[in-house]
Amino acid sequence: MLAEIRPRPDELAHLQGVIDRLVPAIEARGAGAMVVGSASRGTWVRGDRDLDLFLLFPPGLDRDSLERDGLAMARAIALEFGDGYREKYAEHPYINATVDGIDVDLVPCYCVASATEIQSAVDRTPFHTRYVAERITGLVDDVLLLKQFAKAGGVYGSDQMTEGFAGYLCELLVLRYGSFGGVLAGASVWRPGIVIDLEGHAAKPFEEPLVVVDPVDPNRNVSASVSLSKMMAFVELARGYLAAPSAAFFEVRPDPPMEAGAFADALAERGTALFALRFPTPNLIEDVVVPQLRKSLDGLVQLLARNGFVVNRADCEMGPDHCLLVFELLVDALPAVARHQGPPLWNGENAGKFREKYAARPGAGPFAGPFIEDGRYVVEVPRRYRTAGGLLGSDEILGVSLGKNVRRALGDRELLAGRDCWSAEFAPFLGAFLDPASPLVRLERG
Amino acid sequence: MLAEIRPRPDELAHLQGVIDRLVPAIEARGAGAMVVGSASRGTWVRGDRDLDLFLLFPPGLDRDSLERDGLAMARAIALEFGDGYREKYAEHPYINATVDGIDVDLVPCYCVASATEIQSAVDRTPFHTRYVAERITGLVDDVLLLKQFAKAGGVYGSDQMTEGFAGYLCELLVLRYGSFGGVLAGASVWRPGIVIDLEGHAAKPFEEPLVVVDPVDPNRNVSASVSLSKMMAFVELARGYLAAPSAAFFEVRPDPPMEAGAFADALAERGTALFALRFPTPNLIEDVVVPQLRKSLDGLVQLLARNGFVVNRADCEMGPDHCLLVFELLVDALPAVARHQGPPLWNGENAGKFREKYAARPGAGPFAGPFIEDGRYVVEVPRRYRTAGGLLGSDEILGVSLGKNVRRALGDRELLAGRDCWSAEFAPFLGAFLDPASPLVRLERG
Repeated sequence: MLAEIRPRPDELAHLQGVIDRLVPAIEARGAGAMVVGSASRGTWVRGDRDLDLFLLFPPGLDRDSLERDGLAMARAIALEFGDGYREKYAEHPYINATVDGIDVDLVPCYCVASATEIQSAVDRTPFHTRYVAERITGLVDDVLLLKQFAKAGGVYGSDQMTEGFAGYLCELLVLRYGSFGGVLAGASVWRPGIVIDLEGHAAKPFEEPLVVVDPVDPNRNVSASVSLSKMMAFVELARGYLAAPSAAFFEVRPDPPMEAGAFADALAERGTALFALRFPTPNLIEDVVVPQLRKSLDGLVQLLARNGFVVNRADCEMGPDHCLLVFELLVDALPAVARHQGPPLWNGENAGKFREKYAARPGAGPFAGPFIEDGRYVVEVPRRYRTAGGLLGSDEILGVSLGKNVRRALGDRELLAGRDCWSAEFAPFLGAFLDPASPLVRLERG
Repeated sequence: MLAEIRPRPDELAHLQGVIDRLVPAIEARGAGAMVVGSASRGTWVRGDRDLDLFLLFPPGLDRDSLERDGLAMARAIALEFGDGYREKYAEHPYINATVDGIDVDLVPCYCVASATEIQSAVDRTPFHTRYVAERITGLVDDVLLLKQFAKAGGVYGSDQMTEGFAGYLCELLVLRYGSFGGVLAGASVWRPGIVIDLEGHAAKPFEEPLVVVDPVDPNRNVSASVSLSKMMAFVELARGYLAAPSAAFFEVRPDPPMEAGAFADALAERGTALFALRFPTPNLIEDVVVPQLRKSLDGLVQLLARNGFVVNRADCEMGPDHCLLVFELLVDALPAVARHQGPPLWNGENAGKFREKYAARPGAGPFAGPFIEDGRYVVEVPRRYRTAGGLLGSDEILGVSLGKNVRRALGDRELLAGRDCWSAEFAPFLGAFLDPASPLVRLERG
């Protein structure tokens, strides 16, 4: 297994060649240069072609100058050695370029003396690099195995879509448990709330299900972005591997597409009502768009629920061209009458207003009440939307909390229903949606 | 108004005549005799024809002898003066008979020196009588008004069906607030948790929404049987009367029957799915049967909910011949797929068993999962009952917590659906079910 995931000598040599050209060029321009991330410590899985190169500036420089001068230098490097550049934004702007087939991020940051003096998140990265580099000797293969294991299990990556395990987190887990097998044995008994604190220096309580205190910053949880479900998926995979280890645990297998006919058949067998909103993908990075998709999905699920339509499952996907929000309902048609809960009777003023308003039976259609239930007024009134399609097809959906880019993109939306939700663009996503399985179940099914 | 609810002189004279014949007859047989309840203190609303007469025995007598000798004496009195007798059970057995058109309860009890020495609940009643009789002078009309007000509003009676205000509770409220109008003003600002403690001697905290500490027993809440909704109905009526007093607040108007055609029309307009279980009324008193009906109703609502059928409203009625449990659902048909939640992943042993069981996809029909949601396993399996009618028509309903008499009676049940739920026997109940209104709303609609 290791033989397949260790970087090949020619890959390492090629990467080192790029480093050996870029670092002197940066230093010649008067900044410090530091390779960070997996390339800096050999925890680099075969086939990865990423290089993170930091441009270090003195902390006395003001922020505007750092951004201006740092980016200018990064652009110059990119133009000299690469194929042009792309300007990107994380917390700070940086420059991305391709140099000899390697995807290089050139990131200006402050070179501070201690991690507690950092001025922004990127300044912390060099400290991570030093912390791991000083301790990782002899454990590089374990890190490689763990990263590949997490990748194959679909839990690798701290991006917003994955909500999984970052490379630095994998390194810290190997340092904590001493080996790849040790990490799996440790994880197999994790419970939400577990705290791993290599330096024993946590400066506050953390709320997230998995807490790995950053050894260079006692106020930071390295695994803050790991969702409970991804944490438990890792736990499940660890137990599964310990019970029956096999090479399959390291093989990345993307979701197979579900073709249109199979999709229609599966939907018919389930008997549920499926709706999808499809709209153009905003021209922004995934870590900006995905949180907005999630927020929109939550808001629309709540809108459906407020209108009496119970969502069985819902999910979202950001494709290169379109985004898709998909909702599966048990029932998409409801009766004319809807319940509307009023104030408790002991709130005399509000209760009186409510009674007066509804006792007059405003509007046409079925009407009952106000009556008292559990000490509160309740009325039954004509239902505004009797079908989920009517609700999702209305502009009510723009009234929920959407991100601003998703809101704009929804101006050009299509509402799809039933088998028409299928498109080739989303065939793997829709297959996983209609036939979901945990990572271990998926793996055992082969 | 008072002129209409005060007992007429001829009624009082007739009642006194019955008392004057029964009391000496009891005393002649060696027991004490005491008139308790409203007849003892003139707080007797016109048209009531009830007399509670207690037979007092020395506290040294053992309980078996009290029951045997007390009941024997009560039977003898009933046979001598009345039309035969009916043996009844509250906490203790007692004898009910009709004497000259008056409904007389003859209740054997211990004559104890203080209310803290009572051996059963009935022994407490003479203390209530004495407590009220000593204080009620000048307030009798206020009690009469309050009782009639509560009757007309549908909140009079501490029986299990009404869950309202007992006569003794009305008397205590008048003592507390000084007048009928004072009670309404006080009640208009009641909130759940209010405590009224005339003697300032509550011996413990009480949990019920309305607490009126028994002045003869610091451990007892006189209004323990008042439901939150009936408490708030009284609050609503008090506010309504204070805002616009009228004779209508004292007029008892039973629910008008809803005829079959109007019932079918109302149901069609609502668009909901109605089901009713009808079965013979067990041959027991209301206070035994009604709690069993309520319990059965709750259990069946939960059974429906567990199977995915959301109940909009449900209610029960005990008629002389049949009982009716009625359920209104927004939806009575569901898709083939049903969600089944498994254990959290961090419970490793149970999670492993669950995964193994369901990963094998037991059974036919749609199946998805196990997948992980919020850290728990979830599977989707074929739904057992796709229609509410199928579920309610099955013997699953006998698996919920029913009272033993209701369970037996359900052996001879009919399941009714839609407009067929209607019958003349339940026409007033069904009218109130399909067109419910709070007491004040009903009164204002006239």
